[in-house]
Amino acid sequence: MTVEEKKDMQSISDRLKKLRECMCKLKIDAYLILSNDFHNSEYVSDYFKCRQYISGFTGSAGSVLVLNKEAGLWTDGRYFLQAEQELKGSGIELFRMEEEGIPTLEEYLKESLPDGARLGVDGRTISVAGYRKLEKKLQEKNITIDLEHDIVGSIWLDRPQMSCEPAWELDLSYTGKPRKEKIAEIQKEIKEKKADCIVISSLDDIAWTLNIRGNDVSCTPVVLSYLIVEKERVCWFVQKEAVCKSLENSLKQDGITIHEYHTIYTYLYKTDCNSIYLDLNRTNMAVYLKAKNSSRKILEGKDVTLLSKAVKNSVEIQNEICAHIKDAVACTKFIYWLKRHVSEGQELSTEPKRYDDSKEKEKYPETEKNQQKKITEISAAEKLEELRQQQEHYLGPSFDTIIGYAHHGAIVHYSAVPDTDLELKPENFVLVDSGGHYLEGTTDITRTIALGELTSEQKHYYTLILKGNIKLASAKFKYGCAGINLDFLAREALWQEGLDYNHGTGHGVGYLLNVHEPPNSFRSRISESGDECVRLEPGMITSNEPGIYFAEKYGIRIENLMVCTEIEKNDFGQFLGFKTLTLVPFERDAIEADELSEAERQWLNEYNAEVWKKINPYLEKEEREWLKIVTAEI
Amino acid sequence: MTVEEKKDMQSISDRLKKLRECMCKLKIDAYLILSNDFHNSEYVSDYFKCRQYISGFTGSAGSVLVLNKEAGLWTDGRYFLQAEQELKGSGIELFRMEEEGIPTLEEYLKESLPDGARLGVDGRTISVAGYRKLEKKLQEKNITIDLEHDIVGSIWLDRPQMSCEPAWELDLSYTGKPRKEKIAEIQKEIKEKKADCIVISSLDDIAWTLNIRGNDVSCTPVVLSYLIVEKERVCWFVQKEAVCKSLENSLKQDGITIHEYHTIYTYLYKTDCNSIYLDLNRTNMAVYLKAKNSSRKILEGKDVTLLSKAVKNSVEIQNEICAHIKDAVACTKFIYWLKRHVSEGQELSTEPKRYDDSKEKEKYPETEKNQQKKITEISAAEKLEELRQQQEHYLGPSFDTIIGYAHHGAIVHYSAVPDTDLELKPENFVLVDSGGHYLEGTTDITRTIALGELTSEQKHYYTLILKGNIKLASAKFKYGCAGINLDFLAREALWQEGLDYNHGTGHGVGYLLNVHEPPNSFRSRISESGDECVRLEPGMITSNEPGIYFAEKYGIRIENLMVCTEIEKNDFGQFLGFKTLTLVPFERDAIEADELSEAERQWLNEYNAEVWKKINPYLEKEEREWLKIVTAEI
Repeated sequence: MTVEEKKDMQSISDRLKKLRECMCKLKIDAYLILSNDFHNSEYVSDYFKCRQYISGFTGSAGSVLVLNKEAGLWTDGRYFLQAEQELKGSGIELFRMEEEGIPTLEEYLKESLPDGARLGVDGRTISVAGYRKLEKKLQEKNITIDLEHDIVGSIWLDRPQMSCEPAWELDLSYTGKPRKEKIAEIQKEIKEKKADCIVISSLDDIAWTLNIRGNDVSCTPVVLSYLIVEKERVCWFVQKEAVCKSLENSLKQDGITIHEYHTIYTYLYKTDCNSIYLDLNRTNMAVYLKAKNSSRKILEGKDVTLLSKAVKNSVEIQNEICAHIKDAVACTKFIYWLKRHVSEGQELSTEPKRYDDSKEKEKYPETEKNQQKKITEISAAEKLEELRQQQEHYLGPSFDTIIGYAHHGAIVHYSAVPDTDLELKPENFVLVDSGGHYLEGTTDITRTIALGELTSEQKHYYTLILKGNIKLASAKFKYGCAGINLDFLAREALWQEGLDYNHGTGHGVGYLLNVHEPPNSFRSRISESGDECVRLEPGMITSNEPGIYFAEKYGIRIENLMVCTEIEKNDFGQFLGFKTLTLVPFERDAIEADELSEAERQWLNEYNAEVWKKINPYLEKEEREWLKIVTAEI
Repeated sequence: MTVEEKKDMQSISDRLKKLRECMCKLKIDAYLILSNDFHNSEYVSDYFKCRQYISGFTGSAGSVLVLNKEAGLWTDGRYFLQAEQELKGSGIELFRMEEEGIPTLEEYLKESLPDGARLGVDGRTISVAGYRKLEKKLQEKNITIDLEHDIVGSIWLDRPQMSCEPAWELDLSYTGKPRKEKIAEIQKEIKEKKADCIVISSLDDIAWTLNIRGNDVSCTPVVLSYLIVEKERVCWFVQKEAVCKSLENSLKQDGITIHEYHTIYTYLYKTDCNSIYLDLNRTNMAVYLKAKNSSRKILEGKDVTLLSKAVKNSVEIQNEICAHIKDAVACTKFIYWLKRHVSEGQELSTEPKRYDDSKEKEKYPETEKNQQKKITEISAAEKLEELRQQQEHYLGPSFDTIIGYAHHGAIVHYSAVPDTDLELKPENFVLVDSGGHYLEGTTDITRTIALGELTSEQKHYYTLILKGNIKLASAKFKYGCAGINLDFLAREALWQEGLDYNHGTGHGVGYLLNVHEPPNSFRSRISESGDECVRLEPGMITSNEPGIYFAEKYGIRIENLMVCTEIEKNDFGQFLGFKTLTLVPFERDAIEADELSEAERQWLNEYNAEVWKKINPYLEKEEREWLKIVTAEI
């Protein structure tokens, strides 16, 4: 353990000690620290990283439970290794979720606490649905849950300020629908549901409704806020400093008034609305309790903007096509750069024409030049980001880039840190999963790139994944199908050989919003949310990302975004299909053409022709020559 | 209108008049007559045909609503034509369900009845789930539901006796599991669910549990009865005359006591069980209300034997294989007979060798002989039944045979009656959907048979359906998949051409029980029951029956039963597949071999080889020669 690490561990135990002192004063027997913000966002800003503060564990998912003597972290397989390292010496035990014999957090609570004990959790960080599940499980032992105290907040002296980045308006030429229309639709829904108002807590729904974006959440251009839509009034609860005068005026013109972020609670407590519509998966307990107040009626239901947001309008789709061309230019340049500098670069270095190079040598000392040439997972990610930044209207990554070289590619949610950062060498695969936010929409793409000679086994597996991707992309299906009906297509070729991947085949993608946007998704099993059973509608954008992972060896994943489109309507019904938005070449060297069916080969050739046509105008000469080769007819 | 029809209509109006007089006395504003028996069976015996008695409509599905002045029948598309004819002159209006602008029964009730009105329905004929849905919809108008009166029963003077056929024991060599074990498992479930007892009303679950069969329901070898399993006691409520002494003794030895059928109500009313487990979809309101009594706790859940019954044990599977060979012998002989007498017979008749025939002429007068030769939908069905009866251990049809010639084949639930009975001619397709009950299990098979030269269009469509059938039959999938994941396979080839069929792809099949047995099923859309989302388990038997229907022209369906089997288990999981049980040749003349993929061709050749091997030993010489040809390698 380094001195620094020791210091860290010291501070973790200090924090736990202070937390326990508070628990003692408040007569709380156990305290639960979740990783959520107040809006159940997928990513959270620094202000909300209480779980990280108290435990030192920096992963994105996991819950810490602190008891009088013991403390534990529950996290999933993605983070076992990382959590093990980060928790070392903290006194916090790691509970590996879903592993045999490992109790769930609720089971552990029931075992450890006496009958009638009190569990504390910050009510703003737990959804109503989450609370109810917890409550039900703890009922048997009469454990009550206290929601009033943010104990970590009270001991976290140097807690960062809550993010308060400027909110800005997204023009109609990007959104395709004025906020007045969106609000009118919500108000119509409210009436139909016989509610007096709806409280929207999910940040992407608020941003979508108001045609506003911000920068308060990592990788997600949203504004920390709540929205209450009443029959005749719309109130936006937001940090006032985040809203400039002109935006405020513009909102006012559409009948939207600004209220201070934290006043949502008193507003709800006092409102004269008698029946309030809430999505319990997206509303925190603190909001719920204020809304419920004495005798108010809570109408529980799905987020009313869920479907309208998921079904992209024609302006959004047109923009997404444009965003995907720009993103493809950056990605194509990146692949060329990577191949040239890691694999082909090696070959060039053995060529006789080294004279100019020695001139270069004079300019740069040997060591520095070598360092420049060394490409690692992290430096490659930086290069990719640099190439995206060259694209117009690029705003930032839509999630943390995953670049997993060789065996790191087999770790599905791998994220390189300096300690793990591998140098890319001219052999094996590198898996690159990344995405960007543009004014014209959000991208998410995975390519698995060969950096050297591949074995025939590697080529075979790559081709299986490509077959799955093509099979799903070229599906024609009847209106009424959901993702669950089609997931098989992406897995068929793998299952035939007794192989599989342990993740969903696809997720919905927001328009300059969450890169993982429900409900549309492709999954083979029915999840708790049932999202994979939601009908696919023309205009929905979903990822198509089959993969295969061989621990300690390599991983392959191919991911494109697709928009659902109408194909044909006749006496038998409405038939739908997909148009693939992502336009980046596949790994030509990894495709076993003989293993493709005629239909797959045709799809691939058409795809390649489109990639060539749409992307080549934006490339440099050498890049273009390379693209010509890798998109040639197969 | 014939005199007979007029008389019929007279009796219908007399019945309605009497019904309305009773309604008036009982202060009931509307009376609902459903088509259910007391056990929510798919088919019902004559005693329960109240809806038919009151309306004259003989279809299997439909509800009659009688108001003071008006009366209506709600039925689905299968029965529009039939209902129209049968209701003519009855004063009962036909409401075509799911047609645009047609109110549902509940909507009609709400529109027609005043606030606070009283609706009557025999509580024994409506399930708790059905009642709750109805109640919820009528709440708005404060319509109350009276469940106490069987008014049709009270006016139906010549009502048939309730069926009381002998119950008989199904030997362990057929069931593979003693009833004691089955009951012990139910008792274990009861304990786990913290219930004191379970009331089982579904006749197939009772028959399965007790290893008993009977003959009280059309096409279903079950016994009218209820079963109550308590922690220490098992009570079978059955018509005592149906149980012979030796069966009673045998049951007694396993701790099962016999009670009179109708005493279930008083038993439940008085029982000292405090918490009672019920499947509300399979329990009628009368039973529910007695069970609930004052303060008893009703635990609502799925039928506890649903899965154990659906997953056939190895003895059952072995028997099913045997039943399917016998059934295939009957069906193969039938197809040969049909082809020879309808199509090939025609050709023979033009051959010179007519001398023997003229000798025949001497024996039989011309007219009689012609009548003999004429094969119709009904007479063909009789022939098929005769061939099945020649098989050992055959007990009867598992549902009413569907033989739809030419355009009748396009009517999915067509059932020939003398008025519609078409002669089969040496042209076009005939669709034959039938099944049998054997001691060794239940079959359900559809073959579409060419009776003459086919067009290339017909061959193409037949091949598309065959491709769908093969694609599903040869699926390899990971454990965890449900029918909803795989339905696409059967439809893929059709959807690709913008075609579809408007029914599920497959249903579960009972072992000498219901031919339609939940939960396993293949469907493309999620139904209310969610059965298509239930995981497929090795041992489940499901039908695989894609089709295509061209109104006024012809219909094609190919149906085989398949048992789910284990294929491979490895690091990626357990992989499953299907073994096709049905062993009857497809229509060789309708298969466009060029349109099959290599894998499909291979499957077909293997299937044909198995059909030949297993079936040919049981055929006559000419049949065998024909089978050799139609199962030859393609």
